[in-house]
Amino acid sequence: MVKVGVAGYGVIGQRLADGVFLQKDMELVGIADLAPTLSIRALKEKGMPYNLYLVDGADKSKFDALGIPCQGSFADLIGKVDIMLDSSPGGVGAKNKELYEKAGVKAIFQGGEKNSVADVFFHGYANYEKGLGVNYLKLTSCNTTGLIRSVDCLDRKYGVDRVAITIIRRVADPGDYHRGLTNALQLEKAPSHQALDLMTIMPHVEATGILVHTPVTHGHIITVVAHGKGGKKITREMALEAFKNHNRIRVVCLEDGFLGNASFFRYARDLGNPRGDMYEIGLWEDSIVESGDDIMYAINIPQESVTIPETMDGIRAALKMQADSASATAETNKYLGLGKWKK
Amino acid sequence: MVKVGVAGYGVIGQRLADGVFLQKDMELVGIADLAPTLSIRALKEKGMPYNLYLVDGADKSKFDALGIPCQGSFADLIGKVDIMLDSSPGGVGAKNKELYEKAGVKAIFQGGEKNSVADVFFHGYANYEKGLGVNYLKLTSCNTTGLIRSVDCLDRKYGVDRVAITIIRRVADPGDYHRGLTNALQLEKAPSHQALDLMTIMPHVEATGILVHTPVTHGHIITVVAHGKGGKKITREMALEAFKNHNRIRVVCLEDGFLGNASFFRYARDLGNPRGDMYEIGLWEDSIVESGDDIMYAINIPQESVTIPETMDGIRAALKMQADSASATAETNKYLGLGKWKK
Amino acid sequence: MVKVGVAGYGVIGQRLADGVFLQKDMELVGIADLAPTLSIRALKEKGMPYNLYLVDGADKSKFDALGIPCQGSFADLIGKVDIMLDSSPGGVGAKNKELYEKAGVKAIFQGGEKNSVADVFFHGYANYEKGLGVNYLKLTSCNTTGLIRSVDCLDRKYGVDRVAITIIRRVADPGDYHRGLTNALQLEKAPSHQALDLMTIMPHVEATGILVHTPVTHGHIITVVAHGKGGKKITREMALEAFKNHNRIRVVCLEDGFLGNASFFRYARDLGNPRGDMYEIGLWEDSIVESGDDIMYAINIPQESVTIPETMDGIRAALKMQADSASATAETNKYLGLGKWKK
Amino acid sequence: MVKVGVAGYGVIGQRLADGVFLQKDMELVGIADLAPTLSIRALKEKGMPYNLYLVDGADKSKFDALGIPCQGSFADLIGKVDIMLDSSPGGVGAKNKELYEKAGVKAIFQGGEKNSVADVFFHGYANYEKGLGVNYLKLTSCNTTGLIRSVDCLDRKYGVDRVAITIIRRVADPGDYHRGLTNALQLEKAPSHQALDLMTIMPHVEATGILVHTPVTHGHIITVVAHGKGGKKITREMALEAFKNHNRIRVVCLEDGFLGNASFFRYARDLGNPRGDMYEIGLWEDSIVESGDDIMYAINIPQESVTIPETMDGIRAALKMQADSASATAETNKYLGLGKWKK
Repeated sequence: MVKVGVAGYGVIGQRLADGVFLQKDMELVGIADLAPTLSIRALKEKGMPYNLYLVDGADKSKFDALGIPCQGSFADLIGKVDIMLDSSPGGVGAKNKELYEKAGVKAIFQGGEKNSVADVFFHGYANYEKGLGVNYLKLTSCNTTGLIRSVDCLDRKYGVDRVAITIIRRVADPGDYHRGLTNALQLEKAPSHQALDLMTIMPHVEATGILVHTPVTHGHIITVVAHGKGGKKITREMALEAFKNHNRIRVVCLEDGFLGNASFFRYARDLGNPRGDMYEIGLWEDSIVESGDDIMYAINIPQESVTIPETMDGIRAALKMQADSASATAETNKYLGLGKWKK
Repeated sequence: MVKVGVAGYGVIGQRLADGVFLQKDMELVGIADLAPTLSIRALKEKGMPYNLYLVDGADKSKFDALGIPCQGSFADLIGKVDIMLDSSPGGVGAKNKELYEKAGVKAIFQGGEKNSVADVFFHGYANYEKGLGVNYLKLTSCNTTGLIRSVDCLDRKYGVDRVAITIIRRVADPGDYHRGLTNALQLEKAPSHQALDLMTIMPHVEATGILVHTPVTHGHIITVVAHGKGGKKITREMALEAFKNHNRIRVVCLEDGFLGNASFFRYARDLGNPRGDMYEIGLWEDSIVESGDDIMYAINIPQESVTIPETMDGIRAALKMQADSASATAETNKYLGLGKWKK
Repeated sequence: MVKVGVAGYGVIGQRLADGVFLQKDMELVGIADLAPTLSIRALKEKGMPYNLYLVDGADKSKFDALGIPCQGSFADLIGKVDIMLDSSPGGVGAKNKELYEKAGVKAIFQGGEKNSVADVFFHGYANYEKGLGVNYLKLTSCNTTGLIRSVDCLDRKYGVDRVAITIIRRVADPGDYHRGLTNALQLEKAPSHQALDLMTIMPHVEATGILVHTPVTHGHIITVVAHGKGGKKITREMALEAFKNHNRIRVVCLEDGFLGNASFFRYARDLGNPRGDMYEIGLWEDSIVESGDDIMYAINIPQESVTIPETMDGIRAALKMQADSASATAETNKYLGLGKWKK
Repeated sequence: MVKVGVAGYGVIGQRLADGVFLQKDMELVGIADLAPTLSIRALKEKGMPYNLYLVDGADKSKFDALGIPCQGSFADLIGKVDIMLDSSPGGVGAKNKELYEKAGVKAIFQGGEKNSVADVFFHGYANYEKGLGVNYLKLTSCNTTGLIRSVDCLDRKYGVDRVAITIIRRVADPGDYHRGLTNALQLEKAPSHQALDLMTIMPHVEATGILVHTPVTHGHIITVVAHGKGGKKITREMALEAFKNHNRIRVVCLEDGFLGNASFFRYARDLGNPRGDMYEIGLWEDSIVESGDDIMYAINIPQESVTIPETMDGIRAALKMQADSASATAETNKYLGLGKWKK
């Protein structure tokens, strides 16, 4: 049983903890945080299903006042695990790394940290083998994770040598007040970092792209224009077949009622998924169109939860639980119920 | 065991079904709908925990094509129940009523129907006794339901003779595309129907109010200016004490992180509540202020789920399961876990 | 002096009237509408700078009650003009056409009408010559008009044989309450009509695209992936040079403060432009990137006003005021002050 | 001719400059700013109708590079004026005050500064006389300015001794990207500062209130519950008559098309008002309702421009141009065209 800890119980940390909890070959030793945030209060109201440890600087009296039990210090947690999933606020992960190194514990950092924090920039499908046995991995960000799923899916089957992407980005998470955008679309300098990151993970693909922030809270939409390897045409039918066979891609239709990003969230809520989360990216069948040698399509990225499966893959790679991407992703998918909905 | 059916498996119908399912003294016989909507598809993907019946006009072949099993017709469902919860689209409930009357089955209609569809316009706390044994009840709308909870709470304890309300209304539900508002606040003709409805349920209170639609999807906020009976002052402390003792009111603070309507939704998601729903209204301790004889405060109304408890109360009244509001609401609260969070 | 009338004094009609008013070689005979809308009331408050005629079905007593003077019937207006600009609600233009035909008057229809209403689907730069002397023109829609400006600009100079576009569409105009979108991105079935329309106007270009509605009110953003003719590469520098020389394209930079669509609106307000309108499309210098043989860039489309210049061009074509696109657009630009800002 | 300068040419500063420019008994000597912002670039593109001075720390070479002429330093501007209107970013005004004091120049600060920066907290109608001859005034904020207009209007005619307000606040200005709110309503700790500020200006009125931020960019809406002096009832008709006679209040109806805050902005654009601005607050006739002794109504506050008239009044007070509120506001109104629309 691989022992796992989670540092930072925020939007991502909560979901990482839940994800590990579902992996039957892993044990969630505990989570660590700094203050009795709403997320910690909710954990308390649920009856403390996960053990809580306090990071340095935490004021234990505040937890005591609320009757929230703590199991020890951050060092205590690190001392009990094989690997830490670090979803601390940006920059804190780099500091935490010193503690991990001292304790001889592996770690996986989330997208907010600089690439230099890790030995390998990681994606469960596109470069699993590079992460085998490595001490420090950094996961691709939510957009990049989902984007690569779809590009890798086509590339693996047919070959892709170039993509141009347009990211229609949600600007804040549900419940955020500290950031937002009101009646504005905001452009970022091109090329977007997601295109650059894709090239780091898939160096044989040329990528560029433009990112526009939009005032919504759930689900990025990305359009992808992909050029088949050596100009070999990928038809609509070929693309659709590949996408339908991927266990982390949910192919949907506008006419079934999946009219936009909010439909996935509503559907996941109706499914009874915890937090209304969905691990799969969505891919609209009615968005796939051909243009010359190119194939174009649109995907939906559930930003809060999309990186969870690939992080589970990362644990498998770092701890050499499975030797290759196919067997590792299959284990992760089994425990998260991915692909099950296809029957 | 009281047998219950639900007509219309949309935003409200799904939650009514879930609510009935949790009442240990009720049996959910089944739900009825017209088309394989996303909500029905989600039910299928979950493994059909509820039996499905088809209303007249439904095309069974569409359900068959998707492998969605149906247990019979709408008449079949009506024939098996003691009471129907009708959450059909506005206007359809009035037509369904003819079927209910023919079958000698009671029914509770939701806010979208005209008041004339029912014998009694109902609220579980404010006029439970009027619903005892009645055949056709109509529930107050989401805003009115939550508003009355708070006004009845003060009135019951201290007496209230006048309220002036400002409703800051969410304009659409999460996942809606057919209605919305973009960068605009839209006023409705005053007085708002919620103020008029409150006077129907609580005829000893004079009420008026203004409603403004805002471009958000979860949680109305209402400010209430209440005047104590005969000018008797209700202080901040008195109000707070009453609110804290109510099992369907969740008193929160800005400084704990409940910064607005989105916080309740995020908190309920983190609690693991199905669909991220919350049955309680929120009430901000830091919003309560005095002004002369008046007391002013702000509440949050989770529009998708707030009417579920009062509808369960309605079943109890119509079928005389409990003789008074106190015992009926206590049963409902027990099964829905309301008030439990206070320990 | 060419005599012009405007039917429908709404969002577009008001701006068409203003545009004609500025053309020194045209006379705005009057405008026609059905009811004393806010736009008509504003015209009254401004002192009736334009003559008002009433379309069939209008209730003159309502205008009288407000002291709004009317100069006659729709037929009276049609009888005094050489050409009508029809910006009536969708579908009404087709009916009005019968009146225009009977009176032997030419007309230009806006994007809301079906293509079949007109003899030629028109764009001032891309197919001016096809409109010469033609009786009935239909203007491209706002997105298509702006998109074609940019594609034609590259095509004219370097040749373009293929484009793949992503339209990030504003869902409503400022002041709209009857349509809107709240916290959702909504996809349309691909390929978008704008891509198809582009191919009608520029038949030598292959085009496809995906459209996503977003909850904002001013300014569509379109990303374009363009493939040089025969694979001949258009570099970033080549594209920039062409764009900078176009009088209806305003090249801007993020670092100057043009951070998104709302910046154009604010800038136009600060310029003192009537209604805060801008006739130019915006093009971000920092968005232009190369990808293999392709060039990618982002433009901003001010949806309320972008079609005005091309409609002025249409009058020039239909009435053969100028023989070719270059001289016609130069006249229009001169009167609208387009390109002046470059000094 | 009173000589006026403006420090800070942002959202408010631009409008202050325009306002002074329209006062025939004042001269706008110039404006001062730090960097070639979009607003300064727009001034340049308009042909520099106002003289520009550079505040300390400005990099003149950046202005030179853009061909933007500067007339001198901030000290030069201060040396030429009788009074400065300071609309610098919050906190800067307090520093600038030292320069004003040294130069013996009066100043009016905007809402962003602390009250302590000024000798008198000022409103043109409610306490004009307190500002007579005073060196340093601070204007009420946009919400407070508009709110007081309406409360003073009733108080002056009928007497008011108590108000409870709900502020439905726009969270950002058009063109803002650095602040915003997405799909959330955010509450502030009660009582709101606007209620407290009202009591400072109108000490005989007891006021409290709750403020909720909403994701829109133009126009706050405030509901007011007002209690007549000594319980003397103000009827709907009495209130309406008073409001209709006020030259800075525009009484409108829902049925005329003023459906919400966005209608005022659209109407002002259609009027041809520069920037689509409106100096008047809006007041919905259909929002006025009675509740016991109380009168309730809703107003619209155009946040960008509403303080301009009262700032002009402030100049008149500080420099003793008129001896009382009635004559001062009449002069301001005449030059700004306020009340003209009533004929």
